[in-house]
Order: sequence, then structure tokens, then C-alpha cells
Amino acid sequence: MSTQSIEQLIQQFAKLPGLGQRSARRVVLHLIRNREKLVSPLVQTLQSVTDSIHTCSQCGNLDSQNPCSICSDTRRDHSVICVVEDIADLWAIERSHTFRGLYHVLGGTLSALDGRGPDEINLASLAHRVKESGAKEVIIATNATVDGQTTAHYITDLLSGSSVTLSRLAQGIPFGGELDYLDDGTLNAAFKARVGF
Amino acid sequence: MSTQSIEQLIQQFAKLPGLGQRSARRVVLHLIRNREKLVSPLVQTLQSVTDSIHTCSQCGNLDSQNPCSICSDTRRDHSVICVVEDIADLWAIERSHTFRGLYHVLGGTLSALDGRGPDEINLASLAHRVKESGAKEVIIATNATVDGQTTAHYITDLLSGSSVTLSRLAQGIPFGGELDYLDDGTLNAAFKARVGF
Repeated sequence: MSTQSIEQLIQQFAKLPGLGQRSARRVVLHLIRNREKLVSPLVQTLQSVTDSIHTCSQCGNLDSQNPCSICSDTRRDHSVICVVEDIADLWAIERSHTFRGLYHVLGGTLSALDGRGPDEINLASLAHRVKESGAKEVIIATNATVDGQTTAHYITDLLSGSSVTLSRLAQGIPFGGELDYLDDGTLNAAFKARVGF
Repeated sequence: MSTQSIEQLIQQFAKLPGLGQRSARRVVLHLIRNREKLVSPLVQTLQSVTDSIHTCSQCGNLDSQNPCSICSDTRRDHSVICVVEDIADLWAIERSHTFRGLYHVLGGTLSALDGRGPDEINLASLAHRVKESGAKEVIIATNATVDGQTTAHYITDLLSGSSVTLSRLAQGIPFGGELDYLDDGTLNAAFKARVGF
């Protein structure tokens, strides 16, 4: 049987999202086999991330500086705020290089099922920020799930008193999407939002 | 965009077996979010594994002691040696609690395709060990793949001069296996090795 420290390492990896017992064992065996090359750089990066990464007090992004490099970038358009559920969504949008404004990370959605109300996600700070910063547009980019859309509606209500323009991402057929494999909701949305040639 | 150290950590995780860019991002985000609770225990275990784990000079197992805890366990049957390709296979057999002898980890298979010959896996040490230790039985538990079976045949040739009994694991229908989903080779083997009631 594997010794205690190996078993402990396997259990720690097995608890990470997307990994289970089997994949954790593969990862740990790979790390042990290449321990000279892999482990000390990994340990160093883990420690440097833990020591240096903080949550941006303005937008909720993770960065080594506060305000984060996006919030403090003067070349970005500070008049547009894109509201996302999660930092992973912010990363995805940044990878696509389609948006040059600022973000606001909610850190979750409203959820009737999980009993998450407006006070448990960063909504108050959004309202405050929109009022104080004089932003012109708020793009609500929550996920196209029930909870994401509920949250989007709540935000439109929340900001309806202000002069800011509210928008949401277009819904329709994804690039490379085959009609045969799409769900009815997407097809329905794509038909409703059809565009003239 | 994620800062440099986060990006670096993502790339390090993305290179681990079974993980890709997307799963590495999920893991890193999870680690950062729970950094107080997760990272320092993980770093500690990684370091303790790197510092304390060595390859057993007898069987090739990984352990904090050398000879490993299996080789030095006097309650185990030292007259039976089970030959496996990989430490992961040794772990799998140990988890099943079906075998109480010793192991010999080859660290790979012979492979015509990858150009791996007998000198590149622990075959010489197996022949030497069988001769010196006076083992009575060698169970060849290489995988049921082409390379695994080639290696098994090579080992039977290698040890044919000695007085040791050679055996291999039975092939047949796995527990819970549905005939409809099994490959022809397995069905064929199961028919050939059928057992009377």
C-alpha cells in the first residue's frame, strides 16, 4: 500500500474540483516520478499565489495588486461595467479579447433553491459603484441559467432608478453549433432574435 | 486577465496527467478561494513526499523506507512475487486485499512501437531476484494489452530455466460485466476458459 504521506497527498488532490480518487492517484504518481523537476516549482508558485493574490476591493477580481490591473488600467473604458457571476467568467471574457471595459464579480447568483439572497453576493457594492463612478453602461453577463437570469432581472430592477444603460449578452446559436444538437430554448431564442440580411 | 503567478500555476496544473487548461483553471480558482485552508497543507504534503519517498531497491515500489514496507513485512509470503508494470498496478492490487506476497515493479513494458527493450525495464533485477531469493512462484500480472502480454511472454522465457512456478492472472468476464458490451477477445477467452458447474 502507498505510505501515509502519499495517501494524504492523493486525498488532498482527490478533493479538488474535477478530480476523483483515480485521477488524483495518477497525478500524484506523476508528481512523485518527476519530483525533481515538478514539485519545487509547483510549491513555489503555490506559495507565491497564496502570498501575493488578493481580491480587488473594487470589482472582486483576483490580482497581485489592489485595485486590480484591470480596474487600474487607464487604457480601458471605465464607463462600461460588465457584471459576471464568477472570476472564471471574467477570465473567459478576457481570453476572448472582446471587452475593454471594467468588471464587477458578483461571486455567485441569487438562488431560491440554495437560499442565497441579495446580501450574500456583491450586489450592494455594484449599486454603490454604478452611482459613484458615473458609469454609462452596465452589461449583465450572468450565465444563461435560471439562477443567472433571475440575478440579471434583480440587477435591472436594482439599477432601474439610475441613468445607466443596461444591456445583456445576445442569445442564439453558438459558433459551430448544429441545430440538431441545440436545445429548444436556444432555438426559440435564436428564432425570436433573428436578424435581417 | 489573471496575473502572472496565477497563469503560471494554471499552466503547471494543466500539464498534469488528466488535466487540461479548463480543469486546471477550475482547480487553481478553487485553491485560491480556499487558500487559507488548502494551500499550506498541500504544500507541506508535497514537500514531505518529495523529501521522504524513495524507490524500493528490491521491488521498485515507492515508500518512505527502503526496502519498502511490503518487502520488509515478515507477515507477507516472501515465496510469491507478483510482477506488475507500474506502481499504480501495485496500488490497485493492494487496495483489493487479494494478494499477500511481494511485488516486482517493471516500470513499463517491452514495446516494439516505442522502441523499449529488455534493458529499459527492471527485468534483469527480476531474474536476479528470483534466483537469489528462492521464490517458489512468480505471478505475472502485466496488463492484458499487446505490450503487456509481450512482456509476460518475455518473462516466461527469461525464467524458464529456473525452478520457479510461473502463473498469470485469469482472463474472463469482469464482475458486473454485460456480455453485450464486452469485446470479442474477452468473450473468446471466457468461452475457452469456461469452468464446469
